[in-house]
Amino acid sequence: MSKIILTGDRPTGRLHVGHYVGSLKGRVALQNSGIYDKIFIMIADAQALTDNAEQPEKVRQNIIEVALDYLSCGLDPKKSTLLIQSQIPELCELSFYYMNLVTVSRLQRNPTVKSEIQIRNFEASIPVGFFTYPISQAADITAFKATTVPVGEDQLPMIEQTKEIVRKFNSVYGDTLVEPDALLPSNKACLRLPGIDGKAKMSKSLNNCIYLSDTEEDVRKKVMSMFTDPNHLQVSDPGRVDGNPVFIYLDAFCEDDMFAEYLPDYANLDELKAHYTRGGLGDVKVKKFLNNVLQEALSPVRARRKEWEQDIPAVYEILREGSLAAREAAAQTLADVKNSMKINYFDDQALITEQAAKYAR
Amino acid sequence: MSKIILTGDRPTGRLHVGHYVGSLKGRVALQNSGIYDKIFIMIADAQALTDNAEQPEKVRQNIIEVALDYLSCGLDPKKSTLLIQSQIPELCELSFYYMNLVTVSRLQRNPTVKSEIQIRNFEASIPVGFFTYPISQAADITAFKATTVPVGEDQLPMIEQTKEIVRKFNSVYGDTLVEPDALLPSNKACLRLPGIDGKAKMSKSLNNCIYLSDTEEDVRKKVMSMFTDPNHLQVSDPGRVDGNPVFIYLDAFCEDDMFAEYLPDYANLDELKAHYTRGGLGDVKVKKFLNNVLQEALSPVRARRKEWEQDIPAVYEILREGSLAAREAAAQTLADVKNSMKINYFDDQALITEQAAKYAR
Repeated sequence: MSKIILTGDRPTGRLHVGHYVGSLKGRVALQNSGIYDKIFIMIADAQALTDNAEQPEKVRQNIIEVALDYLSCGLDPKKSTLLIQSQIPELCELSFYYMNLVTVSRLQRNPTVKSEIQIRNFEASIPVGFFTYPISQAADITAFKATTVPVGEDQLPMIEQTKEIVRKFNSVYGDTLVEPDALLPSNKACLRLPGIDGKAKMSKSLNNCIYLSDTEEDVRKKVMSMFTDPNHLQVSDPGRVDGNPVFIYLDAFCEDDMFAEYLPDYANLDELKAHYTRGGLGDVKVKKFLNNVLQEALSPVRARRKEWEQDIPAVYEILREGSLAAREAAAQTLADVKNSMKINYFDDQALITEQAAKYAR
Repeated sequence: MSKIILTGDRPTGRLHVGHYVGSLKGRVALQNSGIYDKIFIMIADAQALTDNAEQPEKVRQNIIEVALDYLSCGLDPKKSTLLIQSQIPELCELSFYYMNLVTVSRLQRNPTVKSEIQIRNFEASIPVGFFTYPISQAADITAFKATTVPVGEDQLPMIEQTKEIVRKFNSVYGDTLVEPDALLPSNKACLRLPGIDGKAKMSKSLNNCIYLSDTEEDVRKKVMSMFTDPNHLQVSDPGRVDGNPVFIYLDAFCEDDMFAEYLPDYANLDELKAHYTRGGLGDVKVKKFLNNVLQEALSPVRARRKEWEQDIPAVYEILREGSLAAREAAAQTLADVKNSMKINYFDDQALITEQAAKYAR
């Protein structure tokens, strides 16, 4: 069986270093690993509309931002299929039929949906499209016959829901759909970066993100303004490394060989952390180092972005071609699904013959 | 503006005299009235699957039965477009986007959904597809730009839901969809026929229906076995007319001029009822009259059915052609919808130019 990946992002804003560490970097590695036969990367505009129905322009404007971020990080349209969800109508049809195989109470019990509802303060006014998005995700995953879905731990219940739908469909209509597996990030430290203000989540509205598209100067300013250990008042004070955003970012981005170039007094991150912990190491010095580390990761991304930004029509063309290819794959799955459900009546000569025979008796 | 009708039935069984009186007869009259520019009659197989997901074969087998019943009653494919819901994928896409405009709590408050859930003993295990079917109905109605939807009073909340979706869509994305009006049956007496056993609803499982496809002899037997007034034990006893199925059926089917031929002792139904009420009129006599009345209505239907039954492939061809025509209409509406939502990115030269200009600055 082919090994196929489906993954993607909602186009509600530019992507930031949290996305880079949590998914994009790993995605590029998966793309270049040679292990996978196909990789589908979806810009989930239709899903973004489920809780942004009244801000369609936000979604529309951010598709190109996400696409630019993808290409800048090294996703390669020759190796990965970049697609826009709304351009694959087959996904809606699959969702429609999968909705018959899931109960309302099952959706209500989905922990991811529960917590997302809480984050959005939806309570009683949850849009139905948002409430049912685990089913829509199952359509996305199965449409491309994905075997592997890279997710964070908080998304595991979504994969579980997809597996349930696959099993139910296959048991009612016969073996048709492929059951996917979740692929968790290997490095636990990289699971989630906090905001530069120390808040658990990066968010556009909190203005606490370092974006992949930020200029060198923006990144420097943001790093120098980062929240650290609030009790580390003087250089001589002992400092806390745990929960300190500067060190969390270093955990995610720093590699040993960077010390020789940018901070030769230390051999590795452990030595730096030890010094900070016992006191005598100032935040400014650590932040300057983090800035250098981040710039090293981000400057090639930024350079590629600049190039792509000069050819926006080419980026749309990549998305158009990717969406066409994706549509072909989804159409094949939908045909299989309808065939199993036996709802292709007009191509179903057996049905017509059988019914005619019934009345000829 | 064009006057357009959308109506239809779920293909979960053959149609019976309740359907004939409650909708089919009126539908044929609407078709022949010359008032409407287009009439779409939908065999709602996809909707039937929302609560019959595990009995796809039942739905598949009954499509031809419903189509035969339609043609037998006088629905004319030259005047009305007969279509199968699942063959119009555009309906799923419309549903998908409308789901963002309705809240979960709004669906929970829908009285029709509430009562249907009760009838089906679904309680906690309502399939999501069934729960959301008012949204799917809104897609059906708006896809064909229907101005007029013939419904029973119990279905008024569904039309109200559609109107809400239309208003919401038009207010968020600009004027696009047509708001439909409900068309209630004019004759209150004809709203709903009870089963031949006197139970309020005809149902296949209760075996209390007179089907349009029943033979002359079947109809006669069913009429003669009908429940009447249980206190009308002897011919001389006074009888009750209210709630008496035999008289309810006569209310629906009997016309004055039928007395001359079948029961010349009475001039009209009022005289017959008066005699029954005061006593001295036996049930057998009334049932024999009802049988004659029913046979007069049903024999031309039965004769047309016999003809169509001999050419089943032609019936499928009618459905295929109707579905193709319907799909064209729905595709136009979907294009309008996507255009208003501005999600036709690749055809949206303004978007591409605007984004390119942003980065050329």
